[in-house]
Amino acid sequence: MLPHRRSVFAATLLVATTLVAQTQSPDEVMLRKIYSEALVHGEAFENLRTLVTQSPGRLAGSKSLERAVVWGEQTLTALKLDRVYLQDVMVPHWERGAKEAVELVGASPAPLAAVALGGSVPGDVTAEVIEVKSLQELDQIGREKIAGKIVFFNRPMDPTVINPGPAYGGAGDQRNRGPGVAATFGAVAALSRSLTHAHNDTPHTGATNYVPGQPKIPAAALSTVAADRLSAALAANSHAHVHVKINSQWFDDAPSHNVIGEIRGSEFPNEILLVGGHLDSWDIAPGAHDDGSGIVQSIEVLRLFRALGIKPRHTLRCVLFVNEENGTRGAIAYASAAKGSSEKHLFAVETDNGGFQPHGFSIGSTQGDAANRAARWLRLFQPYGITDLRNGNAGTDVTPLLVQGTTVAEMTPDSQRYFDIHHTTEDSLDKVNPRELHLGAAALASLLWLVDTQGL
Amino acid sequence: MLPHRRSVFAATLLVATTLVAQTQSPDEVMLRKIYSEALVHGEAFENLRTLVTQSPGRLAGSKSLERAVVWGEQTLTALKLDRVYLQDVMVPHWERGAKEAVELVGASPAPLAAVALGGSVPGDVTAEVIEVKSLQELDQIGREKIAGKIVFFNRPMDPTVINPGPAYGGAGDQRNRGPGVAATFGAVAALSRSLTHAHNDTPHTGATNYVPGQPKIPAAALSTVAADRLSAALAANSHAHVHVKINSQWFDDAPSHNVIGEIRGSEFPNEILLVGGHLDSWDIAPGAHDDGSGIVQSIEVLRLFRALGIKPRHTLRCVLFVNEENGTRGAIAYASAAKGSSEKHLFAVETDNGGFQPHGFSIGSTQGDAANRAARWLRLFQPYGITDLRNGNAGTDVTPLLVQGTTVAEMTPDSQRYFDIHHTTEDSLDKVNPRELHLGAAALASLLWLVDTQGL
Repeated sequence: MLPHRRSVFAATLLVATTLVAQTQSPDEVMLRKIYSEALVHGEAFENLRTLVTQSPGRLAGSKSLERAVVWGEQTLTALKLDRVYLQDVMVPHWERGAKEAVELVGASPAPLAAVALGGSVPGDVTAEVIEVKSLQELDQIGREKIAGKIVFFNRPMDPTVINPGPAYGGAGDQRNRGPGVAATFGAVAALSRSLTHAHNDTPHTGATNYVPGQPKIPAAALSTVAADRLSAALAANSHAHVHVKINSQWFDDAPSHNVIGEIRGSEFPNEILLVGGHLDSWDIAPGAHDDGSGIVQSIEVLRLFRALGIKPRHTLRCVLFVNEENGTRGAIAYASAAKGSSEKHLFAVETDNGGFQPHGFSIGSTQGDAANRAARWLRLFQPYGITDLRNGNAGTDVTPLLVQGTTVAEMTPDSQRYFDIHHTTEDSLDKVNPRELHLGAAALASLLWLVDTQGL
Repeated sequence: MLPHRRSVFAATLLVATTLVAQTQSPDEVMLRKIYSEALVHGEAFENLRTLVTQSPGRLAGSKSLERAVVWGEQTLTALKLDRVYLQDVMVPHWERGAKEAVELVGASPAPLAAVALGGSVPGDVTAEVIEVKSLQELDQIGREKIAGKIVFFNRPMDPTVINPGPAYGGAGDQRNRGPGVAATFGAVAALSRSLTHAHNDTPHTGATNYVPGQPKIPAAALSTVAADRLSAALAANSHAHVHVKINSQWFDDAPSHNVIGEIRGSEFPNEILLVGGHLDSWDIAPGAHDDGSGIVQSIEVLRLFRALGIKPRHTLRCVLFVNEENGTRGAIAYASAAKGSSEKHLFAVETDNGGFQPHGFSIGSTQGDAANRAARWLRLFQPYGITDLRNGNAGTDVTPLLVQGTTVAEMTPDSQRYFDIHHTTEDSLDKVNPRELHLGAAALASLLWLVDTQGL
């Protein structure tokens, strides 16, 4: 690309800026200040570097998560907020143990790239494999043919769904419920195709949940390449055997904490505007996008308010939730405490879709069309690439507040690359672009400033 | 992230799809077909893998570019189009030669990461350095203090400009004109800060142009880290010397070609709809985003029309332009030939902003408000993330057609990561996401289908 062409753009922009400068509204001035502060002095990326370097694999019950709790409290304290505190939460404690192994049995065993699913029971089995594309297929095949075998769920995410989020949801039953349901048919283990559009040899973990009162079987995810390899092996030999060894262990629930920091509201200190993400990550993942990005963006929102000397009318609270990945105990504990308190949560926005270029917000409300009410701000947001405000789901950690009358939301950044690295060893700092991360923090701070000053 | 939350999304989508399915317009049906074909059977990413593997560093005059010309012709021919042909273009031929060196002179010489600018004359000089932030500063400092020294342009791209494109344009004069202007003040060499927001040790090349009839001096770009290091060294010792050695060479113009493929229009074969990118890249760059992505997307547009059996009313032409980076001779030759022909170019769209997630099109027209006319298609595009249609500049290669009355456009994808790797060794295949690339091809094909059937 040639810069002279871009110079024309720049000149146009300069003229436009000059003209607008004469008639900028206070709202426009404030958003410009927030974005400039975030882009020039933003600390989110360096905070993320520290978090994922010191505390990769922040799974509930791990020492790494507890280091992250201490880091979160210290980082919020350094902002000289009005209050920083911990909220006690008991979290589930599951450990992977020694590295799992999945292999095609034969004259020369062929290893298949795999990771145990979070929550899997341990086990060491060798058996024939039945490949299926859905849980419903198990009904058709029947217990007699399934009992004693390994069930292999191999339905890919639908590539024609434009946003990979719904495609993930559409294939997620195989990982989330598949092993438990296969166990009710007498299967001895379950394998599932990794939930990703990426075609490579990196396996993706995630939570699985057994059927209460039913048998539990070892469960692992195969990389998409390994899934294709196993499928081809089964096509060549339907009696091929696979060996699955998982060394996981469940422990008693462990003490942990939500980490909370806040700037007290000048007019309505008991009315809360919340921004948050989740501090935990999967054990194998650095958790840079999921959800280290959301954590450092949430902290950055408070830093931006402090740096710009903005005194919110309502209390602005940042919550680093624990245990989103395998229990959501942090969210449950937070909502429960909120219900019993004298505080009223007006608005809660979550950032847990990765630190990519932000484009909008999805908003949930029990009081009518919140997206339409927020649409009056689209003109303000358009220069910053926020063009998509819609009614819809909000994040897992803030949604429990909805039934208390809170308007809940989640930031919706670019979605295509998230599930390439989601729940894997590849969810690392180098996948995060500092400017995209800081644009997200600025978008969150801008939205909260607008809600604080004008209501939603 | 938990899939059960996403399942709600998926269910919502399913309901929405079902409802819409009953009332889908022919336009909606066609866009859905185009996007599904691109996402399920898209060949652009594998074509890109071949192009950047076989022909990295496709600078005008190089053997690598000529390999790419052959590949382009073969790849288009394999689509069984109505016509595939080459258009002769004489291109400038500059070579970097042996690796350049820039170093701080001293007891232990400190190398500074640098690359010669494209078009730089060779040279081997050691001199004191004057650091400036603009070309205008040279006037204030004056010839007496500049003569015999190395001028170091060190103004960063403005981080507060949201889109890095205009920020690139705003700092680009330092690279594009700085060395030539410094030479008119008697400078013996010029260094410029790499045009990027990224802070690392990778230098970015690009074209520089001397002042006609004035002296020419060796010119190189420093990585942003090296620029900061040199600036610090000069702050500590204003008499610090730097050694610059550049081994480049200019040759006679070389023969090359625009590569063209087309599907003949069923009703208006002499009226052309064009899609294109540029086949050349900088010598040091694999050129995966700049502009290998645009090349394979343009080819994919024709493949999509063929695969779906769409017979365009107007001739649909794909042009792989040569020599965008250091001469735009391909664009000039193409526009010149078009002017002298019996053909009329109705519409020409370029893709040269990287293979990132597409969000819109910038449109230039001599016939009023083209973006407003195209806005009737926003509802169709919205499910695919195309939300931004605006009047503005188009790409370098199609803009020469504007004066012939052609409506010109460029696709505008996500912009934040492009200049991190632009014109560097890091512009490699691993930076391209296959789905984002294919979404771009589908967006281009959809736009061209709409223009073909409904006019713009």
